[in-house]
Amino acid sequence: MLSPSWRRFALPSFSRYSAASTTCRASHSLSRLNSVTAQDVDHFAKILPPTSILSTLAPFSLAATELDIYNNDWMGKYHGNATTVLRPKTTQEVSDIVKWCHEKRIGIVPQGGNTGLVGGSVPVNDEVVISLANMNQVRSFDPISGILVADAGCILQSLTDYVAPHHHVMPLDLGAKGSCQIGGNVATNAGGLRLLRYGSLHGSILGLEVVLPDGTILDQLTSLRKDNTGYDLKQLFIGAEGTLGIITGVSILTPPSPQASNNVIFALPHFDNVLPLYQMVKRQLSEILSAFEFIDRTAYDLAVKHGQGRALSDEDVEGAQCFVLVETSGGRREHDEEKLTTLLETLLEADKPLINTGVLAQSPAQFSSLWALREGVTEAVSKEGKAYKYDISVPLSTFKECVDITGEHLRSKGLMREGAVRHVIGYGHVGDGNLHLNVVADTYSSEIQDALEPFIYELVASHRGSVSAEHGIGAMKTHALHYSKSAVSIAWMKKIKELFDPRGIMNPGKVLE
Amino acid sequence: MLSPSWRRFALPSFSRYSAASTTCRASHSLSRLNSVTAQDVDHFAKILPPTSILSTLAPFSLAATELDIYNNDWMGKYHGNATTVLRPKTTQEVSDIVKWCHEKRIGIVPQGGNTGLVGGSVPVNDEVVISLANMNQVRSFDPISGILVADAGCILQSLTDYVAPHHHVMPLDLGAKGSCQIGGNVATNAGGLRLLRYGSLHGSILGLEVVLPDGTILDQLTSLRKDNTGYDLKQLFIGAEGTLGIITGVSILTPPSPQASNNVIFALPHFDNVLPLYQMVKRQLSEILSAFEFIDRTAYDLAVKHGQGRALSDEDVEGAQCFVLVETSGGRREHDEEKLTTLLETLLEADKPLINTGVLAQSPAQFSSLWALREGVTEAVSKEGKAYKYDISVPLSTFKECVDITGEHLRSKGLMREGAVRHVIGYGHVGDGNLHLNVVADTYSSEIQDALEPFIYELVASHRGSVSAEHGIGAMKTHALHYSKSAVSIAWMKKIKELFDPRGIMNPGKVLE
Repeated sequence: MLSPSWRRFALPSFSRYSAASTTCRASHSLSRLNSVTAQDVDHFAKILPPTSILSTLAPFSLAATELDIYNNDWMGKYHGNATTVLRPKTTQEVSDIVKWCHEKRIGIVPQGGNTGLVGGSVPVNDEVVISLANMNQVRSFDPISGILVADAGCILQSLTDYVAPHHHVMPLDLGAKGSCQIGGNVATNAGGLRLLRYGSLHGSILGLEVVLPDGTILDQLTSLRKDNTGYDLKQLFIGAEGTLGIITGVSILTPPSPQASNNVIFALPHFDNVLPLYQMVKRQLSEILSAFEFIDRTAYDLAVKHGQGRALSDEDVEGAQCFVLVETSGGRREHDEEKLTTLLETLLEADKPLINTGVLAQSPAQFSSLWALREGVTEAVSKEGKAYKYDISVPLSTFKECVDITGEHLRSKGLMREGAVRHVIGYGHVGDGNLHLNVVADTYSSEIQDALEPFIYELVASHRGSVSAEHGIGAMKTHALHYSKSAVSIAWMKKIKELFDPRGIMNPGKVLE
Repeated sequence: MLSPSWRRFALPSFSRYSAASTTCRASHSLSRLNSVTAQDVDHFAKILPPTSILSTLAPFSLAATELDIYNNDWMGKYHGNATTVLRPKTTQEVSDIVKWCHEKRIGIVPQGGNTGLVGGSVPVNDEVVISLANMNQVRSFDPISGILVADAGCILQSLTDYVAPHHHVMPLDLGAKGSCQIGGNVATNAGGLRLLRYGSLHGSILGLEVVLPDGTILDQLTSLRKDNTGYDLKQLFIGAEGTLGIITGVSILTPPSPQASNNVIFALPHFDNVLPLYQMVKRQLSEILSAFEFIDRTAYDLAVKHGQGRALSDEDVEGAQCFVLVETSGGRREHDEEKLTTLLETLLEADKPLINTGVLAQSPAQFSSLWALREGVTEAVSKEGKAYKYDISVPLSTFKECVDITGEHLRSKGLMREGAVRHVIGYGHVGDGNLHLNVVADTYSSEIQDALEPFIYELVASHRGSVSAEHGIGAMKTHALHYSKSAVSIAWMKKIKELFDPRGIMNPGKVLE
């Protein structure tokens, strides 16, 4: 579980990031918004049945604790004070609620599965929460084209299960699939494990239905792969984290299911070999390559230390500076195995081999255990100590440099020592240019924090990288946006926000400061 | 060549679509824009060297004919009256020009390869043409990630050639590749032949550099696959046909080249079999399927009649209602051939076969001749008579219905006869839901035209389809936009246009009326 490691942010020492200060900052900018009153709740009761309303206000008068799961994120890091949660079942209900909030200048937080990592889906103050959980019906699925149209509140796993018997898969997959909702996935432009293979949601999403901040329903819910009739407005809502409107329906292209998956782990003598290896693997495996994951030596050792198995022998790992996990997904198992075997042979028979060794999974159990090693890094890190986690995009060639420079910087500050930082590790999705840079310390301290930020953000900016490859901005990184976006870009984001939401009611305090 | 068949629109009988009336309508809405004066040209000469300026005004005083290729589209259908064409070499030059035009309220037409089909890239009046042709440098290419950053004026084919030695391909391919420019491809959201395999440009484009209508340079030219830091503004310019700004630079993800391509043509007894066949082909060929093209019987017969070869014997085609061309592109030829052979065996050995017969290309020459059959339909149509062409997206299941209903409608109007309509044919990209509906007549007449429009647009609208699957809106279909977009969507497009271009100088008269 990630929870324990993430709870650090609730510690008082993190004054800059503490929930209290976030609320404080947000309160200031939200001062022109109104709180929900009993009269508002009366009005909501005309739109929704009583079962769709949760409120601490009369006549519902629930205990505040009954709204806890809506007011707090799963990490316990962000805390809101909503008095009222609405759970509409139809787009029209959403529209009617939003119209009222618009008229009354009441802030709104659209909430999906509330599985985000940056506080995007909980109130910063006492905004009304509109939960999409009751909008959970598949509207249509065409098994020929693979086009699925669903309510925004459908859970990702349930959609995966829905299309599976038709031999299709959802084009995205993430750890939170059992509770995250497709509308939230779209609103946060979720990346996840299948991006290398199926691309981003900007390509997979064919249509959206959105309730705009004045309550207007923008119906762009087409199920067409090609439609060049004017501006592709729906794209704006992909990744806008609910600040421009509430996504209520989604049309998405689901690809045919692969018939077989295989994986292999490589031990590499030098990081410098990762990129030539990636190039060779891409060329040889071509369309069946579905993951190319990087783990540096420290991350590997931590995973092994904390019980994530041992895919390679001591001899195999000796002299290895890093590891690469390659996954294939294809239409016929024997073809994929043949391609993988040829790749292994080519690699091992080379004059100057890029790898020390490679282990090919021979069974579903081995397949899972190789993945467990990669996915277990997160858990191992949290067992090892307190982690400062950065989710960045930088050029592939700079992955190791980013890890090394961060280590040197901490060393120069005298922080690479017992009682302070133990490890700086790197792992992540080479195929997506997405590096998880983790600093593992004995304790959380403002000294380490101050050494890391804005240092890492500036490092990212120097490579024209992204300070948030996939988690988004939410309430957490609004102050860091300028490291990845120019002043012109931010000014234009603000103009777009102002155009769609001049009253600033839609997910206030998120994305833009 | 398409040209002859497209020239029909210049005929006086097509008053609704003639260049004269287009200009007239546009002039009205553009009345607040100013013409380029000699003083403006003087100013442009301070920004650009003389070799980058073409003008009929002093001191250049060129003959108007020297600007013909910029003032007219390749079909001879759209005609502008620009006095001045500017050919900047840098983004800063573009910015300086646009700043001046903004200040002076001079209309601007961004022009790439001028290969469009809807008059999007020629002036409707005397706007200044900014040709991107001189911005034709590759800025960077990373052979590891396959990310290419290039000036907007790079020709698609030259980029294809540039990445080929690195074992990469451009994710799009179209007939005009020898002259179309990547900036124009992005501005028109070009689809083309590889969309089924590599998806749309909304997924492949990683970054854009755009000069906004006030001359501001919006630099979103990142080369990151994942970047969730705020609104994805660049998406707005993909498919905006140059009405929101001028794309000057493009960052695009290029996939690894396939090692082998194969194809096969199937003859089907009924159209009803196309969709089950598509489903089976998708499942069996999975990730190597790169095209699934549909040709109805009439289209096939026309292609054969006009010399596009004969892939199937008389016996093979007997009783066939339509044909399907399937292409695969994969990493290893023998694997792909094995998959295709298995598919053919499965199809032929079925109790109720979906196909009458199938022919698998056995050589590069046969591969080309199968494609020639599909691609030759366009030429065959123009040899057969005068064609009314519609580029629509409709649900796959309605392809035949759309063709049949159009034929019945023409029959009910007494127009299916000698001297009027000879054939109504359908062909196109099943995989993309894109139907080319062609009505082949002995002559162009307003009677036929009036029978077809708005009939076909209404038919498309009844299926929630698109009146322009890939060609765009340009100057041609602004009046038809409402068949595919709701009033709310169009109102929001106008708000976006007003936000970016309040003076209406950027490609006036295009996309929005």
